[in-house]
Amino acid sequence: MMRVDALQYANWSEKIFREMRAGGLNAVHVTIAYHEGFRETVLNFERWNTWFERFPDLIMKGLTASDIDRARASGRTAVFFGFQNPSPMEDDIGLVEILHTLGARFMQLTYNNQSLLAAGCYEAEDSGVTRMGRQVIKEMNRVGLVVDMSHSADRSTIEAAEISERPIAITHANPHAWAPALRNKRDDVIRAVTEKGGMIGFSLYPHHLRDKSDCTLESFCAMVAETADKYGVDHIGIGSDLCQDQPDSVVEWMRVGRWTKEIDYGEGSAGNPGFPPQPPWFRDNRDFGNIERGLSAIGFGAENIAKFMGGNWYRFFETSFGPGEAT
Amino acid sequence: MMRVDALQYANWSEKIFREMRAGGLNAVHVTIAYHEGFRETVLNFERWNTWFERFPDLIMKGLTASDIDRARASGRTAVFFGFQNPSPMEDDIGLVEILHTLGARFMQLTYNNQSLLAAGCYEAEDSGVTRMGRQVIKEMNRVGLVVDMSHSADRSTIEAAEISERPIAITHANPHAWAPALRNKRDDVIRAVTEKGGMIGFSLYPHHLRDKSDCTLESFCAMVAETADKYGVDHIGIGSDLCQDQPDSVVEWMRVGRWTKEIDYGEGSAGNPGFPPQPPWFRDNRDFGNIERGLSAIGFGAENIAKFMGGNWYRFFETSFGPGEAT
Repeated sequence: MMRVDALQYANWSEKIFREMRAGGLNAVHVTIAYHEGFRETVLNFERWNTWFERFPDLIMKGLTASDIDRARASGRTAVFFGFQNPSPMEDDIGLVEILHTLGARFMQLTYNNQSLLAAGCYEAEDSGVTRMGRQVIKEMNRVGLVVDMSHSADRSTIEAAEISERPIAITHANPHAWAPALRNKRDDVIRAVTEKGGMIGFSLYPHHLRDKSDCTLESFCAMVAETADKYGVDHIGIGSDLCQDQPDSVVEWMRVGRWTKEIDYGEGSAGNPGFPPQPPWFRDNRDFGNIERGLSAIGFGAENIAKFMGGNWYRFFETSFGPGEAT
Repeated sequence: MMRVDALQYANWSEKIFREMRAGGLNAVHVTIAYHEGFRETVLNFERWNTWFERFPDLIMKGLTASDIDRARASGRTAVFFGFQNPSPMEDDIGLVEILHTLGARFMQLTYNNQSLLAAGCYEAEDSGVTRMGRQVIKEMNRVGLVVDMSHSADRSTIEAAEISERPIAITHANPHAWAPALRNKRDDVIRAVTEKGGMIGFSLYPHHLRDKSDCTLESFCAMVAETADKYGVDHIGIGSDLCQDQPDSVVEWMRVGRWTKEIDYGEGSAGNPGFPPQPPWFRDNRDFGNIERGLSAIGFGAENIAKFMGGNWYRFFETSFGPGEAT
């Protein structure tokens, strides 16, 4: 069974790379920038180059879907890069191609707040995709950098799905109807993305789960099956949002970046500012098998489980990362 | 008579510095960044340091209103710095104070397009001041960096005037009712800014003038007098938007920056892409006297002319550039 996780942001270490192998993870999309500008992002590419050099038996750089095949054949995890914000391209559309050349494959148009490209889900108002946003989506389509709207506001997401000539992704979020977090996605948003061939990866971050850290495996799996019925079993996958071994200072960076001198607790609160504990059935990368067993237990068929666990993301990677057709 | 021009963006040279002296200009707010990031903006501060060193008898750096007095006493023009976009602060609120320390005194929250802080006047939608925008206005208020909304959209401007605890400025624009350019300001916008003690500087850039390059001095002066009646004679001044000796490549940079790979003609058009010719009565810095004579000819009193030509900006500078009261 191929296993692909479309979003992780761990405090990377040999321990975690070994856990990915123990969990049979063939590919992972990792966040290498939240609020980093271009030069800082290049430093993060450099860090990954060092890890690829140090752990060649555990991980390899992923650029195309066929790299997942190579990773499987050699018992490694292929690592694909993405950004949770367009910060790495700063205000420069020319950096879209440069970042793709360096290996970026996903870029969120916005992270919670308004960006130069679109509105984030924490803004009071959502005016949709901006003038620059339209230009940047066209350029992302051209080079093969996937538009990711995980942290974007609803109207912006629906417009991005319409404007983009290639399918877009919500790499990590859950249906709002199942868990009414601000970040989870309403029906019309999921529909806009999936009906144009896009993907939604389901998050295992407690703030996005029904009952948070107390969410049951059964509830999660029932949500998967219902979503498959509603939007099509070909458009769903995992985007665990696993932020493993990160100190609380990192969640502060994610939330606050450099945009305010005050503290913003995002999905947390003053009393609960840090990372919440994972549910016991998905502690870390070793637990993907629990999800497969949970899906099987509720009668989700083997073929569908294979699609959900990795097949759908594989197909999406196959068609998304190369040059687009000239428009 | 004190003469202050609250916006110029020339291709600076000894010739222009001498014309400023010939025109009796005591102070000028110059744009040193359109789309430049922090490091590029520092280079522009460096260029000005070189000019201050080379032409100490013509120009001097302006940081406070009293520098205008020093400039007058020594027969020089005091040069105050500003940005037409928040690009120099990138995504980093900590740069607000750094830029103020370096000498910045005005910053537009947006230039035509959506920024991280607010919407520009060329966006189809205007969702007002963003989450980061609110934080940045507070910080600008604290350090004494003036919020300039010349190129911002209407709702964003009105909200900025409300949110800011210190008066804000529209350094260069005209009333939309007089010349219906997209960039000119509607009644409720001018009212929101002026009724809180803010200023509007009238532009002499042909795209903002009634009949453009054919605008008459009489028409311009009548507009000044009407606006004084409507919003108060203490809230108006000059912000000529003089872009002297600039090649057309510069207007392309202003309009296109790095946000699109296509050409955007802004206020121009494919057939008229460059800088339009100035009206004959305001060719350059030597012609401020024509405006004084024009105002006098329509019966605008001497005291009001003095306020309009520089007294109002002097008073605004006096109260705007120092530290704000803690809130």
